[in-house]
Amino acid sequence: MHRSFEVTVLGTSSASPTKTRHPSGQLVRLEGDYFLIDCGEGTQLQLVKLGLRMHRIRYVLISHMHGDHFYGLPGLISSMALFGRTEKLTIAGPEPLQGLLETIFQITESRVPFEIEYIVTNPTVPQQILGNNKWAIKTVPLQHRIACTGFVIQEKGPELRLNVSVCEAMGVPVKEYESIKWGEDWLKTDGSIVPNKMLTLPGNPNRSYAYISDTIYDESLIEHIHGSSLLYHEATFMHDLLKRAEETHHSTAKQAGQMASLCNASKLIIGHFSGRYSHTDDLLNEARAAFAQSFVAEEGRTYPV
Amino acid sequence: MHRSFEVTVLGTSSASPTKTRHPSGQLVRLEGDYFLIDCGEGTQLQLVKLGLRMHRIRYVLISHMHGDHFYGLPGLISSMALFGRTEKLTIAGPEPLQGLLETIFQITESRVPFEIEYIVTNPTVPQQILGNNKWAIKTVPLQHRIACTGFVIQEKGPELRLNVSVCEAMGVPVKEYESIKWGEDWLKTDGSIVPNKMLTLPGNPNRSYAYISDTIYDESLIEHIHGSSLLYHEATFMHDLLKRAEETHHSTAKQAGQMASLCNASKLIIGHFSGRYSHTDDLLNEARAAFAQSFVAEEGRTYPV
Repeated sequence: MHRSFEVTVLGTSSASPTKTRHPSGQLVRLEGDYFLIDCGEGTQLQLVKLGLRMHRIRYVLISHMHGDHFYGLPGLISSMALFGRTEKLTIAGPEPLQGLLETIFQITESRVPFEIEYIVTNPTVPQQILGNNKWAIKTVPLQHRIACTGFVIQEKGPELRLNVSVCEAMGVPVKEYESIKWGEDWLKTDGSIVPNKMLTLPGNPNRSYAYISDTIYDESLIEHIHGSSLLYHEATFMHDLLKRAEETHHSTAKQAGQMASLCNASKLIIGHFSGRYSHTDDLLNEARAAFAQSFVAEEGRTYPV
Repeated sequence: MHRSFEVTVLGTSSASPTKTRHPSGQLVRLEGDYFLIDCGEGTQLQLVKLGLRMHRIRYVLISHMHGDHFYGLPGLISSMALFGRTEKLTIAGPEPLQGLLETIFQITESRVPFEIEYIVTNPTVPQQILGNNKWAIKTVPLQHRIACTGFVIQEKGPELRLNVSVCEAMGVPVKEYESIKWGEDWLKTDGSIVPNKMLTLPGNPNRSYAYISDTIYDESLIEHIHGSSLLYHEATFMHDLLKRAEETHHSTAKQAGQMASLCNASKLIIGHFSGRYSHTDDLLNEARAAFAQSFVAEEGRTYPV
């Protein structure tokens, strides 16, 4: 039985919004847990318009300190406070984020009636920053003009299904079931061992979502995002503007497709489009030429991981 | 000949946005001059969607340091920079605004390629903060939970029209026309004086727009906004929630109507509605009971002053 694991895109513009695109923001839902990745200006408005409940957000992950990726965060926190949130909010992001938010709360004389836990991301070393027995969140260092990380949300859990009829026939105590699903052998009270593979069937492999925010094309990412079930990779420009992409430390749609291919992703979504592209067909075609399972991130649309 | 003088409403929510309302923001256009009053989150998105050219904005007036009135400003400035603005921008607002914006520019490593002139508003003493021979901007101290001012944009200019046939018949030199339109007598070279009223006809009285941002109901405002051609007054609550309005230093729709009546405004628009009101009919009816020329501020709509 698969848990729900999906990404709703809230914003697809780079730098400045357009008539049809908002700055970066994505809501990831893994079973009951809500993660907001980046929070450009207007993210809370998008959440409200799409009927996505902001009070369910437990974790906010900010890739870097450019305004189009975090200018919506003070307003989101303010609304959470207004709506009476009491549950802790965990915010992971670059070092200056906490100080800036606290300065803003002070100047606006805002009382935040819930705890905020801050996690400082490291822009040079990949790290696991959060995790439990259901998922782990890891950072991926990105090469942008300012300290920047991507994020990988990795589902965790038993990848095996119990072979219930065998377990029952052999008298495996129910309390052993969980560890067996996680791959352990059954150690009987008489000291003998029943190998795990006698008791289990193949289950669903754990899925992972890789969010590759603003970055120059960088093959050193591959080891960190290899085998992603769903890869989001920025595609600010078409490849004819490669020079402009490199100057601004961004990627092209072709490069996003190449990255998805090289890291053997199952699917790719591209976003963070320059305002010069009013339509995305050409961007999509360019990515698809390099990686067939490419899709355009569309605001308001939900993508299964 | 009347100059164009109009207000486009960009946001009408209080505190938090709703499915249909953005936080505070208004674009005032007086002939060729563009003034942005307040700049809640999403203001630049509203400008883009409505096709209002942000590069034309020359003056930004921020009433107070609550997020729903200025969280859109860093993103707006960022977009102005991205679009290559070189013209000076003048920002008037409370004392902490400049330092906060400069901190944000530093943290986001933003280069702002145009001059920003800051004017610190005084929350206790009404002042003229800007002016030329076409208009003047004055602040009005408001009683809110945090330092807050309203703004009055007052048209200036000759209120008289030349009686051209009389001027020509009397041989008034053309170079005297401008001062005569401003009400001066004609001093002839032989030392004699022709009174102004012989040379002029009644013109159009100067108009004024009063923006009364967040405030508790306060009749001490009347002297500062008396005779406004158009008054915007916040109306966060219906009058049955007067106690709540007073606790939060806000006003009711009935009070907004009363204020318009007492200060002899020509027209009133109300806004800054609590999210609890999904429709505005009752708010409007309440204001109209006190002041017949009341209207609801609607996002995207333009109101002549």
